[in-house]
Order: sequence, then C-alpha cells, then structure tokens
Amino acid sequence: MQISELVERSGIPLARIKFYIREEMLPAGVSTGARRADYGESHLERLRLIHALTNIAGIPFAQAKQILHLIDHPDGSVSDLLGQAISALGGAQQRVHAQHPRADRALASIGGLFDQGHGEMAAMDQLEDALTAAADAGMPVTDRMLRTYAQHASAIAEADVAALPEKGQEAIPYAVLGTALYEPVLAALRRLAHQILVSTR
Amino acid sequence: MQISELVERSGIPLARIKFYIREEMLPAGVSTGARRADYGESHLERLRLIHALTNIAGIPFAQAKQILHLIDHPDGSVSDLLGQAISALGGAQQRVHAQHPRADRALASIGGLFDQGHGEMAAMDQLEDALTAAADAGMPVTDRMLRTYAQHASAIAEADVAALPEKGQEAIPYAVLGTALYEPVLAALRRLAHQILVSTR
Repeated sequence: MQISELVERSGIPLARIKFYIREEMLPAGVSTGARRADYGESHLERLRLIHALTNIAGIPFAQAKQILHLIDHPDGSVSDLLGQAISALGGAQQRVHAQHPRADRALASIGGLFDQGHGEMAAMDQLEDALTAAADAGMPVTDRMLRTYAQHASAIAEADVAALPEKGQEAIPYAVLGTALYEPVLAALRRLAHQILVSTR
Repeated sequence: MQISELVERSGIPLARIKFYIREEMLPAGVSTGARRADYGESHLERLRLIHALTNIAGIPFAQAKQILHLIDHPDGSVSDLLGQAISALGGAQQRVHAQHPRADRALASIGGLFDQGHGEMAAMDQLEDALTAAADAGMPVTDRMLRTYAQHASAIAEADVAALPEKGQEAIPYAVLGTALYEPVLAALRRLAHQILVSTR
C-alpha cells in the first residue's frame, strides 16, 4: 500500500509516521520509484504496537523505543530479553537507587520466589520508592501485610507469565503490554473490593 | 507553640501553612494576643496528614481537601464515609462514565463479592478505563484472567480492611492512605515477580 493508505488505515498522521521511520521505530517502505514506497501489513501492525505502547499503555517515548529495539535486535536469551523489556518499563520518572535497604529487607522477610530478586531488577527501585513513601506517611507496610501482598502478587504474575506466547521474541510485546496494561485493572479491582467491603462492614 | 515552631517542626513553609488555614484544611491557632496564636500537637499531626495525602500519596489538592472535609464533618454511616473517602481518591484525571459496559460485564463474569459493585463507585470508572485500554491495545483481559485478578484483589482488600482501625473517623485516613500508598507496593511486587519468573523460565 502507499503511505497515504497507511495513514488512513492506522489513523496515525503522516508526519508522525515519518518521524517513526526517522527514529528507526518503523522500517521504511520498499522503494518503488523516485518518490514512492510500498508498505505492507507488517507496517500497520508495527504502528498499532507503537500506538499501544506509547498512547494506550502510556510508556514514555524513550522506553518504547528501547522496547522496540529489543524486539528487533534480540540479543541474549529469551529470559534476558523479557527481563530487559520489563525493566525498560520502569519509566522516565523512576529513580534509580544504588542501594535498596527497604526492598532488600522486605524480600528477606517474604522469602520464597522473592529470594531471587536482586538490585539490578528495575522493580526493586519501584519497591524501594513505594515502601519509603508508605513509611514517610507514617503507615509503614508491616511484614504480615508484605507477605500477603507478595503471595497474591506472585500468584497473579504466575498466571500472567503462563499466558505468554512460547516464542521469546513474540512474547516481548505481550509481556510489556501485559505488565503495563493489566496493572490498572488489578488496582481498580482492589479499590472496588475496598469499596464493597467497607460498604458491608 | 507559636507558628514559627510549627513551621520548624513540620518542615512546611509559613506561607503554605497560612494557605492551609485559609482553605480550612487546618484549624487556625488559638488567639493569644493581637498578632499571636497558639498551635498544638493536633496542628502538627494534621500537617503531617496533609503532607502524606498530597506530597507522598500524590492525591490532587481538591481531592485531599474533600477527604479532610469528610474526616472533620462525618456525615452518614462509617461505611458511607469510607466509601466516599475512597471515591474521592479517584483523582482529577479520572474520567467519569455514565455507563460501564465493560466493567459491568466483567463483574458479572467474576461474581461473588464483585456482584455488589455498582456504577456509583469511583473504581468502576477506573475499571472501565483499564479494560478499554487493554482491549484497544489488542490485548483484552480474558474472563479467566479477570477471575484470577479478582480473586487475589479481593483477598488483598480483605487483609487491608481487616487492618483498619475500628473507629470510623480514625479509619478514614488509614483507608485512603492505605489504598493509595500500598497500590505501588503491590504493582512493584507483581513486576518483580514477573522479572524473577521470566528469568527462570
């Protein structure tokens, strides 16, 4: 198809598509003449993925670019790739901590699966920030609560990971989008359960 | 104590404290002379709560004000109050939907506790948005996944609600801060579990 059809079918403006090509997030079309190029279904699919990452999941541009790069240039084992992709989700605002005293203590208290967590995982920065915020507000997370949260978080994560496609490269967009997009679903269900439980208290 | 000591002990600037008094978020001090007023420990506690709501939990100003109003003017049953406080959390960006077709369908599929969810609960707007985003990204949440998420979200919410203080008015700040502050803890633990599970896949 010509680029005008790609614009129409994707709903993404021409200037934006050209920008994605310049940024190497979308391959250029196959040249069919001096000023013409041909685009295929794979371009449309890729545009949908870019749109899902940046506009729907709200992943910052730099991180989305990094995730696309991982998909295009898979380097290392599948589990490495998935780990890097989930790390890239951390987001632009995410503070990186050299040490994770609260998160380390929390993992030691939780044990089990979480014994394998380590400082290089981006989620450790998130956990450190979240535990610090709760403590600063005068509502530190108790060990008992931590264990409850961890037990359910790992059961959910197991179901998430079991639902991933088998092939590593194909699993990357699923893993990234699933981590980002299903998080608000879980948060909404927890809030809804709070409201229902207190209304029947 | 004088207001200067309140500034020092709370770490909150004078202009900000005066602003909170004008906005009726903080009671004025007891007048002890033409230009002097006396502040007590309750003022300090209240400032800590305002700081926790707005700066740590990141609750928008208007919502924080509404939550403080609920604490000061409890009207209705305890469960009503808690419900209103959790609703106030929804946030300024939260879209309000007249209908919740996806969320209604989801609750019907989940059943159990969630049968009591209804359109007036703010979390229904969040759930509608979250389910729509996932579907728009081409990754709709399956019924099976929904049930898994709901089962664990309600178990977590039960632990949260069981940990609330018995007295309704005292429970409000806990309920609000717990809902807002422990959400990132749960999200971080889920992401960490993802990273650990894929690294051992």
